[in-house]
Amino acid sequence: MPPVVRTVLVLACACALLATSVHTQAPASRPVWLEPYREVAARLVQAATGDQFAWRRLAELTDTFGHRLGGSENLDRAVVWAVEAMRRDGLENVRAEEVMVPRWVRGRESAEITVPPKHSIAMLGLGGSIATPPGGLEAEVVVVNAFEELRSRAADIRGRIVLFNAPFTTYSDTVAYRTGGARAASQLGAVAALIRGVGPTGLRTPHTGSVQYGQGISPIPAASISAEDADRIARLTSRGGRVRVRLTMEARADPDVLSANVVGELRGRERPEEIVLLGGHFDSWDVGTGASDDAVGCIITWEAARLMARLGIRPRRTVRIVLFTNEENGLRGATAYAAKHAAHAGNHVFALEADSGVFEPASLGFSGSAAARNIVRDIGTLLAPLGLSEIVAGGGGADIGPIAQAGNAPMMAYLGNPGRYFAIHHTPADTIERIAPEEVSKAAAAIAVMAYVIAEMPERLPR
Amino acid sequence: MPPVVRTVLVLACACALLATSVHTQAPASRPVWLEPYREVAARLVQAATGDQFAWRRLAELTDTFGHRLGGSENLDRAVVWAVEAMRRDGLENVRAEEVMVPRWVRGRESAEITVPPKHSIAMLGLGGSIATPPGGLEAEVVVVNAFEELRSRAADIRGRIVLFNAPFTTYSDTVAYRTGGARAASQLGAVAALIRGVGPTGLRTPHTGSVQYGQGISPIPAASISAEDADRIARLTSRGGRVRVRLTMEARADPDVLSANVVGELRGRERPEEIVLLGGHFDSWDVGTGASDDAVGCIITWEAARLMARLGIRPRRTVRIVLFTNEENGLRGATAYAAKHAAHAGNHVFALEADSGVFEPASLGFSGSAAARNIVRDIGTLLAPLGLSEIVAGGGGADIGPIAQAGNAPMMAYLGNPGRYFAIHHTPADTIERIAPEEVSKAAAAIAVMAYVIAEMPERLPR
Repeated sequence: MPPVVRTVLVLACACALLATSVHTQAPASRPVWLEPYREVAARLVQAATGDQFAWRRLAELTDTFGHRLGGSENLDRAVVWAVEAMRRDGLENVRAEEVMVPRWVRGRESAEITVPPKHSIAMLGLGGSIATPPGGLEAEVVVVNAFEELRSRAADIRGRIVLFNAPFTTYSDTVAYRTGGARAASQLGAVAALIRGVGPTGLRTPHTGSVQYGQGISPIPAASISAEDADRIARLTSRGGRVRVRLTMEARADPDVLSANVVGELRGRERPEEIVLLGGHFDSWDVGTGASDDAVGCIITWEAARLMARLGIRPRRTVRIVLFTNEENGLRGATAYAAKHAAHAGNHVFALEADSGVFEPASLGFSGSAAARNIVRDIGTLLAPLGLSEIVAGGGGADIGPIAQAGNAPMMAYLGNPGRYFAIHHTPADTIERIAPEEVSKAAAAIAVMAYVIAEMPERLPR
Repeated sequence: MPPVVRTVLVLACACALLATSVHTQAPASRPVWLEPYREVAARLVQAATGDQFAWRRLAELTDTFGHRLGGSENLDRAVVWAVEAMRRDGLENVRAEEVMVPRWVRGRESAEITVPPKHSIAMLGLGGSIATPPGGLEAEVVVVNAFEELRSRAADIRGRIVLFNAPFTTYSDTVAYRTGGARAASQLGAVAALIRGVGPTGLRTPHTGSVQYGQGISPIPAASISAEDADRIARLTSRGGRVRVRLTMEARADPDVLSANVVGELRGRERPEEIVLLGGHFDSWDVGTGASDDAVGCIITWEAARLMARLGIRPRRTVRIVLFTNEENGLRGATAYAAKHAAHAGNHVFALEADSGVFEPASLGFSGSAAARNIVRDIGTLLAPLGLSEIVAGGGGADIGPIAQAGNAPMMAYLGNPGRYFAIHHTPADTIERIAPEEVSKAAAAIAVMAYVIAEMPERLPR
């Protein structure tokens, strides 16, 4: 899940927009106050871009453990690995902060057209979906393009499978069908919901993600199907044909299990209690290896701290890396972190989340006060060699949101190119093959410089 | 299967290369002898490109029947549909010429890494593969990049699963691992063979296709896996890790069943016994809807005849459309056609197969004598408005090969862009979404003009 959707809507819009409207002047190309930081920033950039350590670590993580769904053995093993690797890196106070998380198990699943002649459908059950009856369920499909069309066809829905076939425009515009389609269909008596993958047409590529049934309805099985399968069914019905589909899903929710946020720090030289928080989520969906969502966000933020440690840089404030658990299907890691550290929420001076991939062209988004924004824009000038000097509106992230909200901390997001990101988002194709080593190095460099200056400058970043 | 591979190697190279080397002068831009054909050719181009009938027919075929694996109910139903549609088009002597074909059934199948932690592998069993034991087989994987490497590691193979991880270069260079990898691995005692998909890296996209065990070896289960899964396993083993895989396949070969080649004609006005043969194969693999391989080849050749019928054009010779069955896993349609029509093989004056998609930039390949080549190159000038005036070397096709060889007929291939074609070749993503209506219209126009002139000109095309 990209941070732009969840948290920005809740937290960031108001202040970000305010900041944009008030401070529209370009930053000075070489602000004088940054002089003391230039040499270290240059060393960080040099170190980050001088080798492919971070990409290799990303490969080791995603190759060895594969997907890391919350509650899975894969994630548990990856957590152990990360704790050990952070300690080897020389990070401090490395620990796994325990969190209970849901355990949803996909099980075997399939969908096929039964009328006209049998044909398999490329599908992925939605995370959190209930199972079908054993042996599956079969019904005629009603195709709708939007919630309004569903309501206008309310009389046709009972006993049917509803296919939500909204063409992909942007994630935020179309994800509502994935999260809320099953609920809306169930309210009208549908027996299952199929959702056109929330992403551009790929190579018969469905996109999983969570379904939210909400209260007071009877949950029905919900699955994503590829754009091609959705288009095919829509064409068949638009020609007047009837299409029947058999959906078979063994999905189940087991009792909650223990998981953990992985935390490591570079303790601050003068103000260790003040925290510059960097992180991503360590869990992923269970279909690809979660390389872009969000192993790479974890690796690049972690890499920022590793580089400081390796170069002997210890900023004034603490730089804390958190690899959050269970972002995808529960946000329990974010919630637990905010609860555990509630007493110190106000000490979080800045929080950065990387959860939109590192595909270029990338950018940095920021949400905070006008005063903070001016400082961050100045720091952005240090990123000119990386092509990331412009700071856009819209910081935040699902994992950093709760603690940043509690502490009123300015927030930043590392934002990969959304076209490339959503092509593989929540799909089996979210693997390291998509990600260039240079994209990883550049992201780590940018985050390292931003975090270093904010952690080092004499005054804390204004709220 | 693209015609360039099978038949060209057998039949076409010698004469095509000879023709290329002897006749290198450019054709006249406006050969005088073509004057009588220009008006009809222009009408055919106008009719073909003036609407999207052929694309809509392609959509109806692939939407309604989906895949059309030889021996499947889907193919049987599509054959009935094609016969009826050809008759409605006004084609003559429309019939289904019966052919017994193999019936291979994929069944349920999966592969997963079991060590390190469990992870699904994107896979497709190869057509013709045997099953694994019920419940699957599990073994350590040995990764090799080439047959030579397999031989150099002969002592490591017994009891293992061999992964052939040859990077995709061209289809003809790498398909040998799909067809022959299982045989080579079995000879050294392997328990199964995995083949990196024969195509460029897609979106975790495996490529099925036939495996050929040959005689004298013990067959072992064989499957294609995605490039990403192959790379992941290769990276894991290159770091010194052991990778174990569980492969489960229910594939089975049922007794042969009845299928048919679909044949329709425009009977010749003066020399009905002389045949201009156009066609593609109506069967497909069972994973996509076989839109490019090879529904579109059937539709565009059929469309050439339909357009002539609709415009009231009846050439001197017979234009015969054949939609061959069972190209993919048996070539029984091609063999049966050649056997049934053996007595008239010499009456086939020209044979064109479209089995490489219609992706632009496309071209026309030709194999035949120098004299025939000169005439065909002249006809190519009529295709300048379509951007297809240059005739390249390499005609032929797996389906037309046997009859053309028997009759020594010149052969042509409509050749779609191989980069786009092999990206989806034998994959679940071979669907109509990839194909633009304009690409279909243009291909139909080119084939219609070429067939019309060859069927109409006074002398038959030289052998």
